[in-house]
Amino acid sequence: MKSRAAVAFAAGKPLELVEIDVEGPRTGEVLVRIVATSVCHTDAYTLSGSDPEGVFPAVLGHEGAGIVEAVGEGVTSLKVGDHVIPLYTAECGKCKFCLSGKTNLCGSVRATQGKGLMPDGTTRFSFEGKPLFHYMGTSTFSEYTVLPEVSLAKVSKEAPLDKICLLGCGVTTGIGAVINTAKVTPGSTVAVFGLGAIGLAVIQGAQMMNAARIIAIDVNPDKFELARQFGATDFVNPKDHSAPIQQVIVDMTDGGVDYSFECIGNVNVMRSALECCHKGWGESIIIGVAGAGQEIATRPFQLVTGRVWKGSAFGGVKGRSQLPGYVERYMKGEIKIDEFITHDMPFDQINHAFDLLHEGKSIRTVLHY
Amino acid sequence: MKSRAAVAFAAGKPLELVEIDVEGPRTGEVLVRIVATSVCHTDAYTLSGSDPEGVFPAVLGHEGAGIVEAVGEGVTSLKVGDHVIPLYTAECGKCKFCLSGKTNLCGSVRATQGKGLMPDGTTRFSFEGKPLFHYMGTSTFSEYTVLPEVSLAKVSKEAPLDKICLLGCGVTTGIGAVINTAKVTPGSTVAVFGLGAIGLAVIQGAQMMNAARIIAIDVNPDKFELARQFGATDFVNPKDHSAPIQQVIVDMTDGGVDYSFECIGNVNVMRSALECCHKGWGESIIIGVAGAGQEIATRPFQLVTGRVWKGSAFGGVKGRSQLPGYVERYMKGEIKIDEFITHDMPFDQINHAFDLLHEGKSIRTVLHY
Repeated sequence: MKSRAAVAFAAGKPLELVEIDVEGPRTGEVLVRIVATSVCHTDAYTLSGSDPEGVFPAVLGHEGAGIVEAVGEGVTSLKVGDHVIPLYTAECGKCKFCLSGKTNLCGSVRATQGKGLMPDGTTRFSFEGKPLFHYMGTSTFSEYTVLPEVSLAKVSKEAPLDKICLLGCGVTTGIGAVINTAKVTPGSTVAVFGLGAIGLAVIQGAQMMNAARIIAIDVNPDKFELARQFGATDFVNPKDHSAPIQQVIVDMTDGGVDYSFECIGNVNVMRSALECCHKGWGESIIIGVAGAGQEIATRPFQLVTGRVWKGSAFGGVKGRSQLPGYVERYMKGEIKIDEFITHDMPFDQINHAFDLLHEGKSIRTVLHY
Repeated sequence: MKSRAAVAFAAGKPLELVEIDVEGPRTGEVLVRIVATSVCHTDAYTLSGSDPEGVFPAVLGHEGAGIVEAVGEGVTSLKVGDHVIPLYTAECGKCKFCLSGKTNLCGSVRATQGKGLMPDGTTRFSFEGKPLFHYMGTSTFSEYTVLPEVSLAKVSKEAPLDKICLLGCGVTTGIGAVINTAKVTPGSTVAVFGLGAIGLAVIQGAQMMNAARIIAIDVNPDKFELARQFGATDFVNPKDHSAPIQQVIVDMTDGGVDYSFECIGNVNVMRSALECCHKGWGESIIIGVAGAGQEIATRPFQLVTGRVWKGSAFGGVKGRSQLPGYVERYMKGEIKIDEFITHDMPFDQINHAFDLLHEGKSIRTVLHY
C-alpha cells in the first residue's frame, strides 16, 4: 500500500515528504495507521548523524499513536480497530529480561530493531523500489507503519490519540524514572537538570510522589514558568552562578538532594547531577542520551560515600502491561499531557517541528496526519 | 602516660618504634589499651604519601581491638574493663546521618577526624614534646590510644581480641557490602575483583547470602585456593585472557553478573566491574580506595541500560549497634575470621607486616602488643 511519510534519506538533511510503499504485516506483525506523532530529541539526534546506530535511508519517529489496520498471522492480542501506542521498548513477556521482574528492557526484538529491521531481518518500507529502514521498531513518521505485536500497547479507545501519543516516549520516560527507577519517597528533595519534555515529566512525577522540594535547573529561564506549573518549587539558572552548579545545589539544600535527574544528555551535567546528591543516600538517574563515545566520570569517593548512579530507559515502564494504566490515569486527570503540547500542526510541517525543537521554542509539537 | 607506638614520622618511610606520651581522656573520650591490631592497605596507602588527607607525624592503625582503661567525663556507655573495637566510622545516633536510617556515615566527628585531631581540635599524642596526629579516629598502632566514645563498639568479653580485631575493618567491610549495600539475593551470580582480605570477606558474605555462583578474579593465582575455601566457585586470572576482563565475565555468565565488587582501589578495574554486570539489573559496588584525584569513567549507556553503580564504606555497617552482632556470629561459627590470619607476630615486627602486605604474601598479619 501507499503511505505518506517523512523520510530521512541522509544524515544531516531535512526529512523529505514522499509517498512510500508499505508491505502488509507478516507473521506476528501488525499494520498500524498512525493518527498523530510528535518529534523528540532522539529523532533529531539520529537525523543529525551522531547516532552510531543510525542507518539511512530510514523512516524515523517513535512517539505516536494510531489504530490497528491489519494483523498478520499468529497475532492474538490485537485486532483491527484497536487503539495502540507503538513501543520502542517491546514487552514479549517471555524473554529472560521480561521474566526477571527487574527490568523493562525486553530482549525479544532488540537485535533487529537496532539495525532498522523487522524481527525477520527484512524491511516493510520501500521508496521507488529501494528498501527504507525502520527506526526504533516504531517508524511513526509514516502514516502506515508495521510493528511486531510485542511492540504495541493496546489502550482505551476513549483517549485522544493526538494527546496520548506523548506517552510513547517523553511523558512516560520522565514519570517512570521517578516512580520506577528512583522510587522517590514523600518529602524528598529532587533536582531536575534540563526542562524539556522529559524534565517537565520528571517534575510532574516528583509532584505525584509528594516530593517536598523540586529544584528545576536550566540555562534557559524561559522554561521556568512551565516548570512551576508542573510543580517545581525552586529555579536555578547555572549562568547566574560562578560556582559549579553542583556546589550551588549542595549549598541550597544543606548537603545535597535526595534524588537528581539528568534530562539533557550532557555528560558534564550528568557528573553535576551525581555530585549534587546528598552524601550517604543521594541517587542520581541518567535519562538523557549522550553523544556517541562520550563518557561520564567522577571520583569514586562520590560513590563510596553513599551516592548511587543509575539510569533509566522508557522510565522502567513495561509498555504493554503498564502503559494502558498511564492512559487511564490521564483520562482521570491524574497525569498531565496536554500541558506539554506547545504546538499542533499538520504532518507535512514536520521539518518546522524539528526547527522549533532545535530552537528551544517548543516542548512538544503534535503532528496530525 | 607512656605508650609503645609505631609512629609514621614522614610519608614513604618505615614506621619508627618509639615510646610516646598519651594524655588521659577528656570529656566524651575513652582511653583504650590495644591488645591486638592488624595492618590494612589503607594504612599502607596513607604511609606511602598518596593519601591527600594524610598528615604527619601520626600514629596510624585502624583495625584493632582492646580494653577500656579509663573514661573521660560524661562517658556513659562504656566503663573500665569493657572490651571494644575502635571504629573509624563513628555512630553517634543523633546526627542527620545516623537519624536518616539510610547510611552508616555518621557525621559527628568527621571534620576533626579527617584532620588527625580529636573532636575538640587537639591531639592526645606527643613525642619528645611535639604533638603527633591521630589517624582515622582510631590510631591502633599505639598500645594506649584515646578515642571519642562514639567511635568504640562494646563487644563480648568472651571473644578473642586478637581475632575480632579484624572486624574493625576488612572482614566487616566485605561482608557488610554484600549484605547491606548490594543486598545480594539467593541464587545470584557474583563477581569479586581482588582477593585480599576485603575480597575474601565479600566471597564469604556472598556465600552467607546463598549466592549460586561466586567468581573470584585476581592476577595472582596463589590467592585462588583461599578464595575457594571461602566459597568461590569460579576463578579467573585476567592475565590468562586477551579479551577485556569484563567481556570474559559477560561471556561466562550468559550476559553478565547480578552483582560485582571492586576490592582493589583501581579505577580501571572499577570500570570493568561495572561493565561485567548484567544489562537490566546488575549492580556494581566500589569498595577499594582509589589514589588521590583518580576518576572512574564509563559510557552512560551502561547505566541507562539498567546497571547501577554504588559504593560502600565499612560495609554500610553501623559500628556501635551492629558490630557486637558480628562478634556474636563469629563466636557461633557463622562468620569466619581466623582463616584471614596468615601471620601472627609481636607488635615490634610491624614493618615486616607491611612488607608481607606489599608483597602479597599475607592476607592479614595480627600484631600482638
